[in-house]
Order: sequence, then C-alpha cells, then structure tokens
Amino acid sequence: MYKLKIFPVNIEINLGKTKVLKEVLAENGILVDYPCGGIGKCKKCKVKIVRGNKEEAEVLACQYEIKENTVVYVKPKKEGHNILQEGQEREVKVNPLVKKLYVKIPKPSIADNRSDWGRIKECISYYKDLKIDLLLLRKIPTILRENNFHCTLIIADNQVIGIEPGDTTDTLLGMAFDIGTTTIVGYLINLSNGKEINRVSALNPQTKYGADVISRITFASAEKNGLDILHEAVIGQINLLVEKALIGTDYTPENIYAVTFAGNTTMSHLLLKITPAFLALSPYVPVLTEAIVVRAKELKIKVNPDAPIFVLPNIAGFVGADTVAATLAAELDKANDLTLLIDIGTNGEMVLGTKNRLLACSTAAGPAFEGAHIACGMRGAEGAIDHVYFADEFQYTVIGNTMPQGICGSGLIDVIAGLLEVGIIDSSGRLLSPEKIKNERGKKLSNRIKNIDGTRVFVLEENTATGSPIYISQKDIRELQLAKGAVAAGIEILLNHYGAKLSDIKEILLAGAFGNYLLPESACKIGLLPWELKNRIKVIGNAAGLGAKYALIAQDEYQRALEIARKIEYIELSAISEFTEIFTNKMGFDFGGVNE
Amino acid sequence: MYKLKIFPVNIEINLGKTKVLKEVLAENGILVDYPCGGIGKCKKCKVKIVRGNKEEAEVLACQYEIKENTVVYVKPKKEGHNILQEGQEREVKVNPLVKKLYVKIPKPSIADNRSDWGRIKECISYYKDLKIDLLLLRKIPTILRENNFHCTLIIADNQVIGIEPGDTTDTLLGMAFDIGTTTIVGYLINLSNGKEINRVSALNPQTKYGADVISRITFASAEKNGLDILHEAVIGQINLLVEKALIGTDYTPENIYAVTFAGNTTMSHLLLKITPAFLALSPYVPVLTEAIVVRAKELKIKVNPDAPIFVLPNIAGFVGADTVAATLAAELDKANDLTLLIDIGTNGEMVLGTKNRLLACSTAAGPAFEGAHIACGMRGAEGAIDHVYFADEFQYTVIGNTMPQGICGSGLIDVIAGLLEVGIIDSSGRLLSPEKIKNERGKKLSNRIKNIDGTRVFVLEENTATGSPIYISQKDIRELQLAKGAVAAGIEILLNHYGAKLSDIKEILLAGAFGNYLLPESACKIGLLPWELKNRIKVIGNAAGLGAKYALIAQDEYQRALEIARKIEYIELSAISEFTEIFTNKMGFDFGGVNE
Repeated sequence: MYKLKIFPVNIEINLGKTKVLKEVLAENGILVDYPCGGIGKCKKCKVKIVRGNKEEAEVLACQYEIKENTVVYVKPKKEGHNILQEGQEREVKVNPLVKKLYVKIPKPSIADNRSDWGRIKECISYYKDLKIDLLLLRKIPTILRENNFHCTLIIADNQVIGIEPGDTTDTLLGMAFDIGTTTIVGYLINLSNGKEINRVSALNPQTKYGADVISRITFASAEKNGLDILHEAVIGQINLLVEKALIGTDYTPENIYAVTFAGNTTMSHLLLKITPAFLALSPYVPVLTEAIVVRAKELKIKVNPDAPIFVLPNIAGFVGADTVAATLAAELDKANDLTLLIDIGTNGEMVLGTKNRLLACSTAAGPAFEGAHIACGMRGAEGAIDHVYFADEFQYTVIGNTMPQGICGSGLIDVIAGLLEVGIIDSSGRLLSPEKIKNERGKKLSNRIKNIDGTRVFVLEENTATGSPIYISQKDIRELQLAKGAVAAGIEILLNHYGAKLSDIKEILLAGAFGNYLLPESACKIGLLPWELKNRIKVIGNAAGLGAKYALIAQDEYQRALEIARKIEYIELSAISEFTEIFTNKMGFDFGGVNE
Repeated sequence: MYKLKIFPVNIEINLGKTKVLKEVLAENGILVDYPCGGIGKCKKCKVKIVRGNKEEAEVLACQYEIKENTVVYVKPKKEGHNILQEGQEREVKVNPLVKKLYVKIPKPSIADNRSDWGRIKECISYYKDLKIDLLLLRKIPTILRENNFHCTLIIADNQVIGIEPGDTTDTLLGMAFDIGTTTIVGYLINLSNGKEINRVSALNPQTKYGADVISRITFASAEKNGLDILHEAVIGQINLLVEKALIGTDYTPENIYAVTFAGNTTMSHLLLKITPAFLALSPYVPVLTEAIVVRAKELKIKVNPDAPIFVLPNIAGFVGADTVAATLAAELDKANDLTLLIDIGTNGEMVLGTKNRLLACSTAAGPAFEGAHIACGMRGAEGAIDHVYFADEFQYTVIGNTMPQGICGSGLIDVIAGLLEVGIIDSSGRLLSPEKIKNERGKKLSNRIKNIDGTRVFVLEENTATGSPIYISQKDIRELQLAKGAVAAGIEILLNHYGAKLSDIKEILLAGAFGNYLLPESACKIGLLPWELKNRIKVIGNAAGLGAKYALIAQDEYQRALEIARKIEYIELSAISEFTEIFTNKMGFDFGGVNE
C-alpha cells in the first residue's frame, strides 16, 4: 500500500497497487490535459514529483507509475475566459418544449364516474393521444384526492410526465447544453418567461482520454469499458453543471423538466452511450443521426427523472447537432442571400446556402487550432499567447495577463499571418533562414530565428512561466497548412456543389470559441478564410449553445432544428475525387497576404 | 424451528416461527380455495392434520397455526373441466399487433453513409414516425455488422422492439390472456399464421386473498403491501402459464413478442399494480379505463422483455375489458338485431344493443353463482353437483363422476328451478314444510326436507365425500334471489334506457364459464333470464378470452375493441332511482316456472 499526496489541492490517497498517475488523477477529478490521448507523445501533462525532502523532477502524468509513497504537485487548471458562453442572441417567442398546466379537474360523482386518467385527459383534450407512464399513473389517484382534484400537469413530448399538487406553474425550468469536444456550456432557463437564469461552463472531462473526437472514439472502442467511462464522464460533468447553475437560486434539480443537447455526432453518441466506433472507420457511419427523446432517468441525468431529454439531430458522422443548432441560431434556413457558416474547432464544419438549399461538409481541420500537435501549443486558457502583432515592435497578449506558457490557436494564426507579411515565411510555407529574408521588417526580426532540437524555429519569447522558450517551428507551420488547406478546400467544394462562386457569398458567419478569438484579418491572410471576403466576416459566438437554448424555449425552434437536419445536404469530402487536388492547392500561401 | 410435512405432494418445510398454515401453503404454491377471503367463516379450506401416529383432525387452513412439528394432508386441487377455455370461434384475418420483417439493409458506402437507424427506417418507410428504445439502439450497430446487414425487425405499437440476426420471421408468437376473478386462461398463438398452439388455464392465485373483487380490493387497500401481493400473485401465475403453454414446443419465452389482456376493471388495476381502492367506494371511480400499452419488463412478465403488453380498455369500475372483449368476440358492434350479451360470474355484466348503440351495466350478482355464501356451495370443480334433474326420480350429476362434495352454481339453479316446479318452493321463495306442499311430485320428495342447525333445508345427498349431507337451505334460496333479482333488474333497466321491450331482444348471448354450464331452461325458470326468451338463448363460451385472442391476431380487431369501449354507454345502476323497486320486484318467482 502506497500513499499519494497531491498538492496544492491537498488530497491524500491510499493505493493498493502500482498505478499510473493519470488514472489516479482522473479518478479524483483532477483535470489535466492529455492532447495526444495519454500516449506520452505531446508531453503536455508534465507534473512535478517531490521526492524525499527537496528533490524535484518533472514527469509525464500519463506515463508515470506510482510504486512508492509519492508527493506530486499538479497545478490546478483554471477555467479561463476561453470557454465561450456568449453568442449573438435573437428574440424567440416563448412556447417551451415542456409545459405546465394548472387544472381544476371536475370531481367524480355517481353521475360522472369516469376514470381518473379519463377526466385528466378530458380537461386538456386539445392534446390528442396523450400518453402517461405506468409509474406516474400509479401515483395519480392519491395526488388527485389529497389535493381536491386541483393539480398541475407537466406535459412534454405529448406525454404527461409529472403531476404536482396545487398550482406550481411558476416553477418550470429547463436546461440547454452545448457539449463540445473540449468544453460544455449549460444554460438554465426559466421556461415560464424564457429568461436565462444562469449560464455555466466547464471542460469536457473526456479530454482526459483524448483531445479530439478520433482519440475519444479510439478510447471508447479499444479500452475496456471505454464507452462506459466516456459516457459517465460527460454525464458526471453535466450533473455538476446542473448543480452549479442552481447555486444562488431557490430551485432544485427536480424543477428542471426538460433538457436539450447539441453536440457533434461523436459527443451525441457518447452522451447516449451508443458506440461511436464506426464513425472512425470508412465509410464513417453513425448509429444515429435522427433526433431522439429519452427520459432523464435513462441517462442518469440528475434533473427531474421523468424530464424528457431532447438530443438534437445530427447530419452525418462529422457534422453534428452543434452545426444544426448553429444553423438554427444563425437562421440560415431563412437566409435570402448566400451565406457561409463556419464552426472551426477540433473539426471544421461548414454550411453554405440560403433558405432554398443548404449544403454542409466537415473538414479534418485537426486539433492544431486547439494547440495540439504544436510544439508550444496549448488550449486558449490562462497563460496562452492569444494574439501577436507585427507592428513597429513585436508584441503579443497573454490570456490572464500572466507570464506566457504557450501559444493557442488564435495566436498561432496571428504569428503565421505576421511572418508571411514580413516575408519570414514564403508562399510555400518555408520558414526562411535569416540570410534569405528580403523584407526589411522581416530582417529586423531575424534574430528570433533559431535552431532548437535540430529544427528551425521562430522564437516568440524566452522569458516564460515554464522556463523554456515559446516558439513556432517549421513543423508547426506544416500542421497549420494542413488544417487551413482542409477548411479552404471544403469551402471551394461546397461552392462547386452549390454552383456558386466565392463572390456570391454575402456573409461568412464565424461560430464557436475559436471563431470568436481569432482575428478575421489574420485568418484571411493565411488563407484559412477567403482573402476576397475579409470584409464580409461576422463573428457570432457560441451559436450551437444558443440554438440548443432556442429549441428548448420554443417548440417552433425545435421543429426548425429537425427540419434543418432533414434539409441540409451532406457532402462527404472523402468521396469527392477532386478533393485531394483542391486540398493540396489550398495548402500554400500564394495570395494577397504574402510579402516575399 | 418446526418441520411441516405436506402430503400427498410430499413437501417438507422448515419453519422458523409460528405461522398460519394458509400462508405456508400459499408460499409453496399449494392452491386451496378461501371463498370468504380466509376469515374463518366459510369453512371451505378444511384440511386434515395427522397428529402423532394416527390421531387425525380437521382444521381450517386459514386459521390453523403451526406451533410444532406437523403433518398435514391437503388434497391437491385438480383443475376440473370447470375452467372454461372454449368458445365459439370466428374467422379473423391475420394481421397481428406485432410484426416481423426480414430486411436486407443496403450496406453503407462512402457514397451512402447515412446512419444505421436512418437506413433501417428507410427500409420500412411505410411506417411513419417509427420509434426505438435507447437500449435497443445501442445494440444495433453490432447486430447489423455481424450479420451482413441482414436481419429481422420486430415492430409493434409503432416502435422497433427488437432486432434479430438473419431471417427469424417464422418464429413469432403472442399470448392472449383472460384474467378472471377466479380463473386465468391463456392462449399461445403462432402470429405468423394466427393458429393456436396451446391453451392453458389455472386458478387466479389471488383467490387466496378473497373470492370476489370486493374482498380483493379490501385486501389491496387495507393489508400492508396488499396491492404488491395481489399484483405479484397474478404476475407469478401468468409466468407459470407462459411456461406451461410452451411445454412440448421448440419455442422460448423470448419468442413471445406481444401479449393482450382482458379482465375486469379490478383485475386490470391489479395486473398493472394500480390501486383499485376507489373502485369499492362510491362513486366507484377507476384510475384507468383507457387501453394502455406497457412493456413486458415493466410488469416483469417473462416473455420477450420488450414485448408490448396490450391491456384492453375497460368501460367503468364494474364493466371491464372482459366485457369489451366478449362484445368484440360476439360482434355486438355489428349486430343488426337487438342482442343482449350476459356474462355472469362473480359479477353479472351485460351489454344490450345493436351496431347503432350499445348500453352496458353491471349487477352485483354476487359470488352465489360461484358457490360462495351457499351452505354446501363450492366452485364448479371436481366433486361438485353441477346438474340436478327432477324427473320421475331425483337425479344429479357430479363433476368428475366422483362422490359429491358440494354443489356449484349451475346445480344450485337447477335445484331451485326444480323445487319451484314441484311446488316445494313457493313464489315468494319460501321453502315449504312438508305438510304445506300441494303438488304431487313435490309431496314425493318431502322426506328430503329436514332441519339442520335450526334451518329448514332440502337434502340432495346424505352419502357424500365429506361425510356430511349436501343440501340447500332457506338462506341459500334468499342468496340466489338477491343475485338473480339483480341480473333481472339490470336487464329491465337496460331495456328501459334503450327504449325497447323484452320481446325486441332477438338473441341472448350467454358468455363465460357459468353461462356455459347452466341450463338455460333452469335459468329462465328461476327468472334469472327472461322466461319469454328461453328459446332465444345461445351459449357462446369464453367470449372474453376469444376477444383477447382476436385482438392479438388482428390489429383491426384491437381497434374494434378500442372503438367498442368508446361507444358503449355505461349505465350506473346505483344512480338509477327506480333500481331498488325493480330489483325488489324481480326477487320473487311469480311467473311461468312456478307450480304451487
């Protein structure tokens, strides 16, 4: 038996056998990022081991085995401003997915001795073919008679899901969730007036088991009980967020009578504990894309156990309900002019069209934009360089205004856009050696070009929180080229299918956290977004979360979401013969932004 | 610790504490009748205690406490021909409530990567808004891929309830149950051709807790866990009948994919574990009269756990789904001529009408017809005198051709009809003393009129299996008068409401076990049924069971049952001001059958 002490959270754990540190941390709810999925490659999970009195060493939490009494220092992850909860809201007429009706049911008499359930249905006969669960039915006779036949019915999904004594119509809450690969955002809504009570967010604890959907799918398929572990992780976090959202209110979890979920297809599968295995294998087939309604108790979500859980429809394996919800929030289904909606996260999903026709595709943007596979990359959390300016002086900003620890996606795009502008990167993506730089501004920065570990790099900062320099390497540039090439190729293929040209796009809507933080100017400079349209870009925030919220507040919006999912034509890029060529063409930087 | 040996079944039981014999017998599945509900009144549950070597004593199982090592002799109840399984069958076009479809689902490709569930729905797109349970959905991806996307879908209640590898369309069974207060009959049906495989029956084990519905309701309401006990008793027996029905076949319980139930309203409530308490209190309100569909697993019925259980609709507190099913079997909803359907059991339910209009009522016929509250009464089981003839000689028949033990309902009606005919009972129902008998045939039988326990009785047999004489007493005649008066009054009130007269009735259909065994001639003589219509009586057997079977085999028949329940106008006799007067008038015998 070994003792493990974890600082600064100050937990002491008894271990019966040798165990990998990562597992112990996960079991005790201590969040550490494992972008590579915990295979020891990315080295992002370094923690400090305190041996004996003073001896300290850095180890990888994903690899380190605890075989003796150990003290470990794990810096707690803070939730930075990086979790995007905001979005551009529009007015929605309140007509929620769950309703409460206070009814004064006529009391039975010898002249009217219809059944309890019959007289309830008669009271609300505008609901046709209304159903009721057997367990609830069993409770009805007592509740009616103890309350003079005056009670409140809770109705959702054409079913009576609850009955409460007296008039409780004032207390009707719902929650909408956006389950992202990296973050989960929840909205607690008062469904009697549509007003938001609280907005909460947290990291998706599944990140412990892999940064992107592919590593999650691998974990779910290959690890023993992998699917159960991922499912329980997300459900556990949802339940914590429910509790968190209720703090400071007079409500209880039982007052939450409906929940909507938007997430990508993998997140939807994991939420429902449906294997995502076949999403990762060609031809990338989901088990379910259709909307599904289950009860809270079926998923052990700790709201009212009979509350219906509306999981919004997905479109295909890699275009999920989050895209549907974003399309709903942005009202592409009512657009008169050709509009392009892009949500760039670990994947890049996009929808192009008008009210008449909508096309969608997904590009394997890869987790580069989330800081993975990048030498000094990190998520957009405290300590990340999020913006870089190549003005007279080289400048950058850090999330939380602390010493920098690494660089996040928006910073990476700024750096590369800047290096292109000052001619340090050429149009093929090569990071030039100082002597080859012709641009005067570039020459001034050439002292930042160095060799680290045998690779040419551009150093952003030597004086960092970790003690190691922060830089971008030639390999990082190639990673970004792959990602941005995929997105740009996706846009071109959608346009080809639609029969439109770039200039026909009247507006580009940039949804999601990454879209919110990147500078459109930089995105266009590197060719991630079309340079020609750099003045038509509008950032719309967490549109997926807003869509889930609208669907909860208004049945019409929910129906629109179902209609959007049916209507969108999905384009499978890997089935398009010209994709590879277009993709390759789009990887270069040979356009307006480059100054060689 | 005491030992209890039970002969002749030869069971030895260890008892940790003093226990009433009834409980021990019930726990060990040994069926004994307790018509009075086990309160020690009816003395029908006598068993023999063997003390020491030879000493024997008769005790009441419902009262006797086991406080020492005991040997008891409990004659096993045989299921006599008394459980009516037969009925007059009609042809029904096979279109069952559950269907199997063998589908060869197009395999996914990169050009067609719709979801698993989407492609299943596409295959059977003539089903609209088809649903699927989350638990089943989770199994689909594996089943499809392990079987080359060829599988059999099981569909019921607009939901996919199962999926099986390959083509299993040959194996599709269903069961229909008629849950009577006294007996349960089950029909195992091959739903691929509508053919009956087996027909099984057993006593309703709830009889241990009371012979009639009122004593069951009292038990469910007043006893601790009473509702649970009654619910579990009936479910346990249903499960035994499922097993019994499958004996000698190659099928398993999992092959049974749908079940229909017809029973009276109390039986329906107990089956669903819904409190029947308010059925016994004015204004006699059921919790549920509507049809309900639940899953087998919700009721722990051991067929396929996802099989839908169709509980047929009831009409009112004392006109249940058994009456609906009998109306369906007898096709009153298609009748051109005025027809009266009567099912006399512990209650007497009746339906009067044509295809244009149907009226129903229930009369408290009481359990007299089932042998309860009758001095020498017993159910129509082995040893019961079931028919009595007052020809030249006094003759009777016994079920099973054994020594008689008692008299059952049909025998009781024959005796009273005969005694009326030979002038031993007068038109007021008085059992005359020998000197007052004027009729010659009656005088010859006057030696059978005796006094037992201070009451005048007519002795049927001295030489009996029990050693005590079998007779009918003045009190028995009064019990019968109450019962038959109620039925006759019900008929009159239905006719009044319909605006018809007795002679307008073209046919009387006699359903149920009792109707099957009684002699219509005798029933008319005592005025239970109208004397004027004695040639228009047709015995139709277990119509309730047949109705449940038809509803299982054909969706149209199920829909007809729902329509019948909606259409029937229920007449609450206790709300009819003239009921008491009509009832009192109908208790006498002053009509064609009497010879004073």
